[in-house]
Amino acid sequence: MKRNLFFSGMFVLLTFVILSCAGTNVQNNNVLVIQEQGIFAVGGTVIQNPGTFDNYKFEGWVPSGEGQSYHGDHATVSYQIPANARELPLIFLHGYGQSSRSWGTTPDGRDGFNNIFLRRGFGVYLIDQPRRGQAGRGTVEATIPPIADEQTWFDIWRMGTWPDFAQNVQFPKDEESLNQFFRQMTPNIGPIDGAIVINSVSALFDRIDGGILVTHSAGGSPGWAAGIKNSNVKAIVAYEPGGFPFPEDAVPEPIPGLTGTLSPEVVSVEDFNKLMQIPIVMYFGDYIPDEPSANLGAENWRTRLTMARRFAEVARSRGGDVTLVELPKIGIYGNTHFLFAELNNVQLADLLSEWLKEKGLDK
Amino acid sequence: MKRNLFFSGMFVLLTFVILSCAGTNVQNNNVLVIQEQGIFAVGGTVIQNPGTFDNYKFEGWVPSGEGQSYHGDHATVSYQIPANARELPLIFLHGYGQSSRSWGTTPDGRDGFNNIFLRRGFGVYLIDQPRRGQAGRGTVEATIPPIADEQTWFDIWRMGTWPDFAQNVQFPKDEESLNQFFRQMTPNIGPIDGAIVINSVSALFDRIDGGILVTHSAGGSPGWAAGIKNSNVKAIVAYEPGGFPFPEDAVPEPIPGLTGTLSPEVVSVEDFNKLMQIPIVMYFGDYIPDEPSANLGAENWRTRLTMARRFAEVARSRGGDVTLVELPKIGIYGNTHFLFAELNNVQLADLLSEWLKEKGLDK
Repeated sequence: MKRNLFFSGMFVLLTFVILSCAGTNVQNNNVLVIQEQGIFAVGGTVIQNPGTFDNYKFEGWVPSGEGQSYHGDHATVSYQIPANARELPLIFLHGYGQSSRSWGTTPDGRDGFNNIFLRRGFGVYLIDQPRRGQAGRGTVEATIPPIADEQTWFDIWRMGTWPDFAQNVQFPKDEESLNQFFRQMTPNIGPIDGAIVINSVSALFDRIDGGILVTHSAGGSPGWAAGIKNSNVKAIVAYEPGGFPFPEDAVPEPIPGLTGTLSPEVVSVEDFNKLMQIPIVMYFGDYIPDEPSANLGAENWRTRLTMARRFAEVARSRGGDVTLVELPKIGIYGNTHFLFAELNNVQLADLLSEWLKEKGLDK
Repeated sequence: MKRNLFFSGMFVLLTFVILSCAGTNVQNNNVLVIQEQGIFAVGGTVIQNPGTFDNYKFEGWVPSGEGQSYHGDHATVSYQIPANARELPLIFLHGYGQSSRSWGTTPDGRDGFNNIFLRRGFGVYLIDQPRRGQAGRGTVEATIPPIADEQTWFDIWRMGTWPDFAQNVQFPKDEESLNQFFRQMTPNIGPIDGAIVINSVSALFDRIDGGILVTHSAGGSPGWAAGIKNSNVKAIVAYEPGGFPFPEDAVPEPIPGLTGTLSPEVVSVEDFNKLMQIPIVMYFGDYIPDEPSANLGAENWRTRLTMARRFAEVARSRGGDVTLVELPKIGIYGNTHFLFAELNNVQLADLLSEWLKEKGLDK
């Protein structure tokens, strides 16, 4: 009897050790247990030049290209799958001027959403969209001047009014964090071409089957389109998307603002209805007024949040499962446009985890 | 007595389970146990434009830059530290037209050196050098035409003579592997500036203290220079380096060849002696003849291997610990310029592991 009790105790302990290291869905906080990781290209096209390639003629390190090929316009995707992963992975698509690095860390060097959701048992795929980051080979000539623009982005992204941070901002205010943040920007290598981005995201979903698409900012619009195009997109999580689709029979007025006029993105009723088949959540941070403002960042996001509200309304009227979370309205203050990488990013991740659970997306 | 035996057995089993998941130095083959991972920028400069930035004037998404700043010329570094890591991590510096993606996988999607050496207990740091990949913000204007050049590289990198693969080549010959390989190329975003690359690599070694620098191809020359500049570089592993340093009192003749004349890189005797303080190993693959050839790839690497032999000779005469491994001479055939990512890359990794052990660098 005593021995059986002892045996049971050891068995429970052993089971606990095995589970806590090989990973139940929720992993040990101290280590990441990765079943598989790697990096690959997806999508893209091939330029095949006319002429005949001469194997024995050295034309210098930048050859004429005669008879040669050029693979470009693909996305580059790095991925990690934890042990005992949940069914649906998270696929992250960055915003303007960014790359997959946006999700890999925070400006102050803590766990980004990549690590946080790996720890929570999700496979993660990080995209460098075509003509960005490691997916640098575009099929159109690019000219990239080093134009100093960081103060503009600081303002537009609502960190504050340069050089002052916004009051109670969640963006880390130390100098090195700002240095890291500015250095995570990386240029467009050629024009941004929505169709090419959408095709590469869709090709990724073809490759991995089902997944949850998480977009940020300018990743929002191609994200909606990928959700329409590919039924393997099982849900969309959009952090401050920059644009919104509307069915052609319910297109709202464009919204003028200081940073330009925001137009709705018109799609067919059929396409819009495809998007209505999947759960959607959008998150917006702080410092976004309801009324026009002289502040560029406030203005830029006032127009977009206003359009987000209209999108949510139209979507719900068509049976869509669309949640719009305005963080200050649920008592979460101080978030800028990079809300998922700020001081309270674990709280933001918790919100997302709750939503995924509610929608049955975390099995 | 019986119970003690039982207790011991359970204890041994429990210990085994804990060790095999939390990681001794050599990890379980099935999962990677990661203590820490992330991504950061290192090195670089800041352009500060004259004038006054006007917070309230929207100049469009590409502003004039007046009064604004631009952080550029940094390297971007992603890293992973396994549980119970060995003392010295491996720092990987890619070659021409490449990024950190070179080390992250193989063209046929197996474990790259990144994963292999993580499994063997080494911390790994993968560099995107300044003006490449995710470190795209350079301080000089870049023009990037999509010049079709893939057949040139296929030949120059000794995969074969396009469209034929070399006999018995270790490069995977299926179509998708070649597609992935071509798509791992990514352009220079502005001119390659050796000093900037060297500074960023050195800044990385300042940040992480000691490490082993692993270079490939065009990463070779800035690698030697970083080894001279920073005593935190504890060893250098160079896969087919493109250039070689010589002390000013023992400079060999340049070596002419079909793809240009290869000149020695002259450094002071004092600097050369610094490099002689650390163990160095170089690996060269197959298809490199001793005599001049009409084949561009053969020629390009004939000149460089010849210079590598001279470097090894001079280094040894100055007390350097320099090993030059010509793979065919030890019975390993079929490797191209991307030897570390080919079908036999585990064998190549074994060679490196043996060398690291021999030099006491794997503690």
